[in-house]
Order: sequence, then structure tokens, then C-alpha cells
Amino acid sequence: MQLIDGKLIAAQIKQEIAEEVTQIKTDGGKTPHLAAVLVGHDGGSETYVAAKVQACEDVGFKSTLIRYEDNITEQELLACVEKLNNDTDIDGFIVQLPLPEHISEDKIIEAIDYRKDVDGFHPVNVGRMSLGLPCFLSATPSGILELLKRYEIETKGKHCVILGRSNIVGKPAALLMLQKRYPGDCTVTVCHSRTKNIKEICLQADIIIAALGVPEFLRGDMVKEGAIVIDVGTTRVPSNKTKSGFKLTGDVAFDEVAPKCSYITPVPGGVGPMTIVSLLKNTLLAGKKTIF
Amino acid sequence: MQLIDGKLIAAQIKQEIAEEVTQIKTDGGKTPHLAAVLVGHDGGSETYVAAKVQACEDVGFKSTLIRYEDNITEQELLACVEKLNNDTDIDGFIVQLPLPEHISEDKIIEAIDYRKDVDGFHPVNVGRMSLGLPCFLSATPSGILELLKRYEIETKGKHCVILGRSNIVGKPAALLMLQKRYPGDCTVTVCHSRTKNIKEICLQADIIIAALGVPEFLRGDMVKEGAIVIDVGTTRVPSNKTKSGFKLTGDVAFDEVAPKCSYITPVPGGVGPMTIVSLLKNTLLAGKKTIF
Repeated sequence: MQLIDGKLIAAQIKQEIAEEVTQIKTDGGKTPHLAAVLVGHDGGSETYVAAKVQACEDVGFKSTLIRYEDNITEQELLACVEKLNNDTDIDGFIVQLPLPEHISEDKIIEAIDYRKDVDGFHPVNVGRMSLGLPCFLSATPSGILELLKRYEIETKGKHCVILGRSNIVGKPAALLMLQKRYPGDCTVTVCHSRTKNIKEICLQADIIIAALGVPEFLRGDMVKEGAIVIDVGTTRVPSNKTKSGFKLTGDVAFDEVAPKCSYITPVPGGVGPMTIVSLLKNTLLAGKKTIF
Repeated sequence: MQLIDGKLIAAQIKQEIAEEVTQIKTDGGKTPHLAAVLVGHDGGSETYVAAKVQACEDVGFKSTLIRYEDNITEQELLACVEKLNNDTDIDGFIVQLPLPEHISEDKIIEAIDYRKDVDGFHPVNVGRMSLGLPCFLSATPSGILELLKRYEIETKGKHCVILGRSNIVGKPAALLMLQKRYPGDCTVTVCHSRTKNIKEICLQADIIIAALGVPEFLRGDMVKEGAIVIDVGTTRVPSNKTKSGFKLTGDVAFDEVAPKCSYITPVPGGVGPMTIVSLLKNTLLAGKKTIF
């Protein structure tokens, strides 16, 4: 069993990006610039956005944090998006989700210029991804693909079973693992809460991507010998063993599943650290105007 | 075994649309107007476009056919698209594919205003479909869903196996059968040329959507008792039994498979007639400005 070390790979890629940014600056090019919009004071969102801004600084990007109280109106937020769309110094920007209930997330996302949509959530990017065209890939599926690539894991003709059908992980991961290129070319099965014989299906899988958000859902008796298991779950489970009072728990019962795997990602330190790196990659591409 | 009669359902829906158009006209509303752009003289394309124009007339739409020789430049075709985008009398339009090799189909499709993209090929419509948002659905997947609905076939929790991963059938059908609504809520497996144990997977299917383009690929011993089989294949196979010298052949070996099925679509007369009806439905929606 080999552990897929997302933390290590993320550090390597950050290093690669930092070197490229140094080169761009040396050549007199424009420093990539990411803006992040944060509405309200949700603890999770604060942490994520702070980590994104820090990562930008680490690799030499310019970053701008724009904060609003959670009583901002939809129209005011749309005006902010419009301003960022038109700001030629901003290469890409994100609006941290979730937004307060009185604001339509779909409306905000669709208002973002897809050429600056480094989260890859705009329908144009989702559609282009589905069609196999160049686009900004959303962070989690992109991070999964990068891990498979860096560990040179063969995917062609493998049966990839995806647990979960969310718009941000399950569906895009399915489309990507299906595409006629590496990593991809898999037979893909998507399971979810309505799936009847999930154990039987998982036992057929060469690759399992678990993204249900159900702690330790995938047990040892659901995985065949030699499988590759990618754990996307990150649920905060109460724990008296940590200072914070909770433990980040994946969708995989690691101790049971790991001994049967050829490769497995841990939680934390697997897919998680890759997501911010995917955002940095997109911002670099946006800065270089590589895609659009 | 019950035959799914696409020809009959298509005629019913055309009748429903015709009644709605009559009502719109009676109420002094705008007659829906579809334009079709045909480049060159490909036999298949000529036939398809003629059928689409005829269907528009049958239901009381206005239709406009715009023809170009196949030496039209990409820029000239883009200018035509731009003109149609800005023509307020045109509610929706299609550019018949395939286009000559010197013209980028992706570029033409992306130039179409997605609010008039009644083929549902624009990335915005593909992305919105993937995200479960209102959009113009492309014709074949939309036709399949309509057939399942009209025959009141239960789909929730069923295992739907899709043969083929094309952008116009396999991928969208997978996303739609996966969605959290009816018809949908299926466990979905997508198989293709790289799939190793396709027979074994098909034998697990409650619903099979065959869209490989390989005549009579699905044999009797690949289908379990009671399965629902939707045949999307339409390959012209040479035949000395028909006047035209060929026979339209599906991806399903009908005589072997049909006796095992609870429901099955024939070829011709199954999914085929539904595709033009889907285009009419989209044009009606475009005329009513229901989606965008």
C-alpha cells in the first residue's frame, strides 16, 4: 500500500508555480492577481479564504481580499462582481461560498466573467469541461486528477466508481474520468443515496472516489484487493483527542480500507491540500491568458 | 415486452405543440420562429434540415432556411450567426453539423447566443444542464427522457448503463439520468470502447441506453430479464431488401434482446422521431422566453 501524499505534492506544485512567477516577473511580465470576495463571518469561509490569500502570497501572486457584511444586497454584490470583471489588473477572482440565503449563488456565479472564473463554477467552464474543451477546472476534481498524474497511476480501461453526485465533485469527476485522455478513459459508475447495491458496485471498482460527505462510509469489506481509493470527505466529527474538539474525518474507514489498497489518500493531507493548489494553477493560467 | 412507440409519442407531442401555437396566435402572441443554417450539400444534412423545416410548418412555426455553399469562410459564417443573434424575429436557430473542415464547429457553436441555441450545444446550455439549471436540452437525451416519462417508467434507484460517451448523447444522458428528479435518480455507469467487461456490466443494468454507433452491438446474452432498452444507434447498413439499398440499424440486436425486455425502442421509430420534437419543444420555449 502506498500513501498518496497530497501535502507533499501540493508543496511541490506550489514551488513550481513560485518559480514560474519569479520568471514572469524577471521577464517584466504581469504578476498574476487573484481577488477573493468574502461575505459575512462564517468560520469555515474565513479559514478557507485566509488560506487562499496566504497561498497567493507564498507563490508571489498579488492578492486582494474584499469583505462585506452579510447584510449586503444581491444587487450590491452583483455590482462588486461587475467591477472585478472590468478591472484589468485582476486576472481571476472567487466569491467564497456559501452566500447568505437572500443572495442567489447561481446568479452571482453566472455574473462572473467566465474568463476570470478561477473557481471553475460558471456554466461556460462546466460546459467546456464536459465537452473536453480548455477551461478552468474546479478545484477538487482538478486536484484528484493531478494526484493520479503525479503518482503515474494507470487509469485507461479501469472501472472508476464515484460515490456522490454533487455539482462540485461527483459530476465533474465522473466526466473527467470518462474523457478520452490521461488521466481518464475509465468506465465510470456514479453511486449516491438512491443506489441500492452500493457494496456490490464498490467491490468491482479499480478506483474509488469517495465524495458523499458521510464519515467512514467506505468500509474494508466494500473494497477489492489492489484498489486505488481517493477520499474527498472532510467532515468535522467531535473528538476528545484533539485540542479543537473535533477531528477531520474522511468518507473512508482508513484503517480497514488502507491494507487492501495499492494507493490511498489520507484525510487530512490527501485531496484537501490539492484544492488550493488548483486555484493557484487556474490563477496562473488566467494571468497568462492561456485558456481564454 | 412493450414496444416504446417513438413515432406515436412524437406525433402526440407535435399535436400538443400545434395546439399551443394556435392558442398563442389566437391570443395575439408572437409565432415562434426557427432558422436553420445549412452549409454545403451533404445528403444526410439535407434530409435532416428538410425534416426540421417541415416539422416547423406542421406545428405552425415560422421557419427560415439559410443556405451556403461549402466554400463559405468561417468569418462569413460567424457573421451570419451574429446577424441571427441580433434578429429579434428569430427565436432560435441551428447550424446543421457537420461543417466543412476549414470551419471550427466549436467556434461557431460558441458564437451562437445561448438564449437562441435550441440545439443545446452551447457550453452555457451544456453547463447548466450538468448543474441541473433550466436550459435548452440537446435533442437526443431530451427525447429519451420524454419517452421514459410518457411510458411512466420508474427510474429511481435503477442501474442505468449507458454505452457510449459522446458529447451529444452519452455524457448528457449520463448527467440527466443521475439528476435528483424524475426521470433520473439512477445509479449510472458509462461504458465505451475502453471498457473491459462490458457484458458483465450490461447484465447488471435495469436500463440500457445504447449509443455506441455499432450495429447490433447489444446481444441477447448481455441483457437481464425485464430490462428497459433504449436504442440510439442509427447506422446505415447495406441491404438488398430495401429500395434505398440500405437499412437503418440500431445498436441493439432487436430480435434477440426484445423478448427479454420489459420495454424496448425499435429502430427506426423509437428515439429517432423524438429528436425533431425536442427541437420543436426548445423553439417553443425560446419563443415564449421561458428559460432565458
